[in-house]
Amino acid sequence: MDIEFPSKLVQKVIDELSRLPGIGQRTAMRLALYILSQDDNYAASLSEAVKNMKDNVKHCEICHNISDNDICSTCANPKRDHSIVCVVEDVRDFIAIEETGQYNGVYHILDGVISPINGIGIDDLNIAGLIDRVENDKNIREIIFALPTTVEGETTALYLYKKLSDKGVEINTIARGVAFGDELEYTDQITLGRSIVNRVAYQTR
Amino acid sequence: MDIEFPSKLVQKVIDELSRLPGIGQRTAMRLALYILSQDDNYAASLSEAVKNMKDNVKHCEICHNISDNDICSTCANPKRDHSIVCVVEDVRDFIAIEETGQYNGVYHILDGVISPINGIGIDDLNIAGLIDRVENDKNIREIIFALPTTVEGETTALYLYKKLSDKGVEINTIARGVAFGDELEYTDQITLGRSIVNRVAYQTR
Repeated sequence: MDIEFPSKLVQKVIDELSRLPGIGQRTAMRLALYILSQDDNYAASLSEAVKNMKDNVKHCEICHNISDNDICSTCANPKRDHSIVCVVEDVRDFIAIEETGQYNGVYHILDGVISPINGIGIDDLNIAGLIDRVENDKNIREIIFALPTTVEGETTALYLYKKLSDKGVEINTIARGVAFGDELEYTDQITLGRSIVNRVAYQTR
Repeated sequence: MDIEFPSKLVQKVIDELSRLPGIGQRTAMRLALYILSQDDNYAASLSEAVKNMKDNVKHCEICHNISDNDICSTCANPKRDHSIVCVVEDVRDFIAIEETGQYNGVYHILDGVISPINGIGIDDLNIAGLIDRVENDKNIREIIFALPTTVEGETTALYLYKKLSDKGVEINTIARGVAFGDELEYTDQITLGRSIVNRVAYQTR
């Protein structure tokens, strides 16, 4: 906003909120005024939750997922299949897969993908941790790559493949193809083209 | 989200953020993870700004705008024309008018409009404060209504008009009509119809 806000205290909150992704100055103002309009508990509760999260959240020592404990609830869960490790870019992709309810293995969170343009190299990611994990945990028999289909994602998958291919584990990647319910005429050419090239045996079920 | 988040500390932030208007669970998750990914200062700074705002922001004793002091910077500004008072619904409308740079008077913030459906009556708004102000400040000679063109806004304007019409002040409302730059064919019928009925003398400038 071009004008001086009538309260520097509110302006400060607007400035902080507008640093968030997808939140502009105007949305930040709306949010700040909403927080101000709520009873005292909300502002205090929001403020405390943010501070408490940042001060106390840990990363799981095994998979590097965010966690309240040294070992996350997935890695600590004996009902999970610890012989299958799904490699994802970040926590959001972990959540997306968990929400399907179709996967019972464990995870490895890379905290990003290799991206020289953005200055993200191998050492910035949790890659050494994955290689160590596969070498040391003889229980692991399968790695699944669930990485983005971008240049960065593909580069990361290729690098990991090279590092892991001699470790005696099966290396798979999630299936790519025409989404369920998608109409062929509206499917992008690359997806449709690859789905024909990479066709699979028809299964009745 | 249907699944349990891997950290209750993060889940708590997601829950608090998703109480904000226009912020769903998924956006809240993105924001929480962003806050977590930033250096320590940001979370602490955001947390403190929110708490500090809620604990210390006041309402101006004259116009009820949010303020860091007992009297807001607009009401305390001697360069402002204190004989003209623009009545607005809330702080956001105050900001919108300030941003035009076209108004040099002062304001009165009602903190809402009369809305029986939402249980907002005359006593819930800063209406008595406006009437007292006009009665006691003999310097005031003009009131401008800048209220929404909704049933609630019109009802509020009518009520204020009845209360203020015998106080010896001029009562105006902001001009309504076809917006500058708008094409007539795309202007809504009510606006276009009223702009013809309420036509004004042509001015060269």
